[in-house]
Amino acid sequence: MKIGLDIMGGDFAPDATIEGAVDCLARLSDGETLILIGNEAAVLDKLHELRVDPSRFVIVHADGVIEMGDHPARAFAQKKNSSISVGYQMLMQGTLDGFCSAGNTGAMLVGASYTVNIIPGVFRPALVTILPCIDGRNSVILDVGINPDCKPDVLMQYGILGSLYARFVLGIDNPSVGLLNIGEEESKGTAAVKAAYELMKEHPGLNFCGNVEGNILFLDIMPDVVVCDGFVGNIVLKQAEAFYTIFKSRGFTDPFLDRLDFENIGGTPIIGINANVVIGHGISKRKAIMNMILQTRDVVHADLAQKILEAI
Amino acid sequence: MKIGLDIMGGDFAPDATIEGAVDCLARLSDGETLILIGNEAAVLDKLHELRVDPSRFVIVHADGVIEMGDHPARAFAQKKNSSISVGYQMLMQGTLDGFCSAGNTGAMLVGASYTVNIIPGVFRPALVTILPCIDGRNSVILDVGINPDCKPDVLMQYGILGSLYARFVLGIDNPSVGLLNIGEEESKGTAAVKAAYELMKEHPGLNFCGNVEGNILFLDIMPDVVVCDGFVGNIVLKQAEAFYTIFKSRGFTDPFLDRLDFENIGGTPIIGINANVVIGHGISKRKAIMNMILQTRDVVHADLAQKILEAI
Repeated sequence: MKIGLDIMGGDFAPDATIEGAVDCLARLSDGETLILIGNEAAVLDKLHELRVDPSRFVIVHADGVIEMGDHPARAFAQKKNSSISVGYQMLMQGTLDGFCSAGNTGAMLVGASYTVNIIPGVFRPALVTILPCIDGRNSVILDVGINPDCKPDVLMQYGILGSLYARFVLGIDNPSVGLLNIGEEESKGTAAVKAAYELMKEHPGLNFCGNVEGNILFLDIMPDVVVCDGFVGNIVLKQAEAFYTIFKSRGFTDPFLDRLDFENIGGTPIIGINANVVIGHGISKRKAIMNMILQTRDVVHADLAQKILEAI
Repeated sequence: MKIGLDIMGGDFAPDATIEGAVDCLARLSDGETLILIGNEAAVLDKLHELRVDPSRFVIVHADGVIEMGDHPARAFAQKKNSSISVGYQMLMQGTLDGFCSAGNTGAMLVGASYTVNIIPGVFRPALVTILPCIDGRNSVILDVGINPDCKPDVLMQYGILGSLYARFVLGIDNPSVGLLNIGEEESKGTAAVKAAYELMKEHPGLNFCGNVEGNILFLDIMPDVVVCDGFVGNIVLKQAEAFYTIFKSRGFTDPFLDRLDFENIGGTPIIGINANVVIGHGISKRKAIMNMILQTRDVVHADLAQKILEAI
């Protein structure tokens, strides 16, 4: 298995990305190779400093960088030798099984739709992320940022995509699916959510448990998969970040708090595209980078894109 | 000042509501009278049990109760002698200055629109609630549940309504207003939020600070007023409840956590209607009821409905 890492992506790149890659080495199995994509000289210097043998990686030189402030579509089109562009070209050619970056999220999304494309039958890809539950389980929530305005059939299909993720990546049998809403009754919510409820309750392939409210998030009663549009999901995720910040700053220590820490989760896979791609947080440091790489490995192992193609 | 309390509303009514009313007595000033609306015999029994002189209240008998499971509009139309209906009739007649209930939220909203009406010029009323910030300030967020689908002009006007609430109820001069979004850039968000941004940045009456993301909620950088649709606001509020539940169950104690406790906040005013109405949480016990009554008093003191009429 070949996992590509954009070493130029993220606020602390390339130092943090290379450190994260090095930290990964001990956790990769035989046959799992890490391909570092970016400025070769920077990689070699850093590996020298860390006293790590460069032959433990494959290094693919890429000239340019899509900066955080760059316009995603324009930068992706113009910077053909940037690490993100090179990563996607390698995915297209089949020389990578998975690719991850903590760089410009917009460019990562543009790259996905310009190169590897959406899986036939998928209406819209989604960003899916893990939400830890207080009872030790992991749930997933989607979308957390690609589609702020979602049509009902897109929400319904997110239930299916999320179920496949929960089943094949997290190993949850027959995952339960809840629709995030402002009340449990069918009549609650936006027009789109009300219509999605109707579609989801009729769908034979979903273990649908109905509407769920915001006060079940992170609790033991949270379903395995929570479906919402990318606006709501993004607010949920970032509000959790706010609470993490607050309770950490108050000096609280708790295993649940550690599981909320994005550095321990890694990244956010794009699901629904013909490739295994994971996007990291721009502020990722070495631990977050390491976990992003390991998560990419798990997504590749699950062969998720193929599973989705078969299921949709 | 005459404050009406629906003693039949809420999961623990009428015991908890009467207890909350009794706890209020010591905090009310001369000239502030509490009117208990509901089953008179139940009130007298309970006051006897608590050894409280009934003459410290005005008791208005109401025969019926709109139950939590009742259909709001139907129940409000049919149960004309219910405590909620009687409360609204008294508001209409001017025999109450404010009214509060922890009963059926839908019926409270229906009552508002069937009786006291929307203030001329207001597009849609909103539920506004206080969010505590880590630095000790209180911010407000609206809407938290009336309007799941909001048009851009409604969102813009929520900025004005929220500013008036922050100024006249919380005493914040020139309150800053942020639009809750999934990125700081103008181009982010749903179609409605993008259009609202354009309206808000041009509005001379708003101290608009632009888009704010979910990770500023509850922090010291949170603006005084956060605007969002009723779907998003409801999820934010209930997610905060989930975190409160979790950290309380972990045995954490912290002043911020206490300020998150809805029992200390009281209720959620409906703003934009021609009356001072506060809705409490269905699970309110005596402390929450007491704080709901005190909050109603503050809203009446601020003369908010009149301030909105003048400003819109």
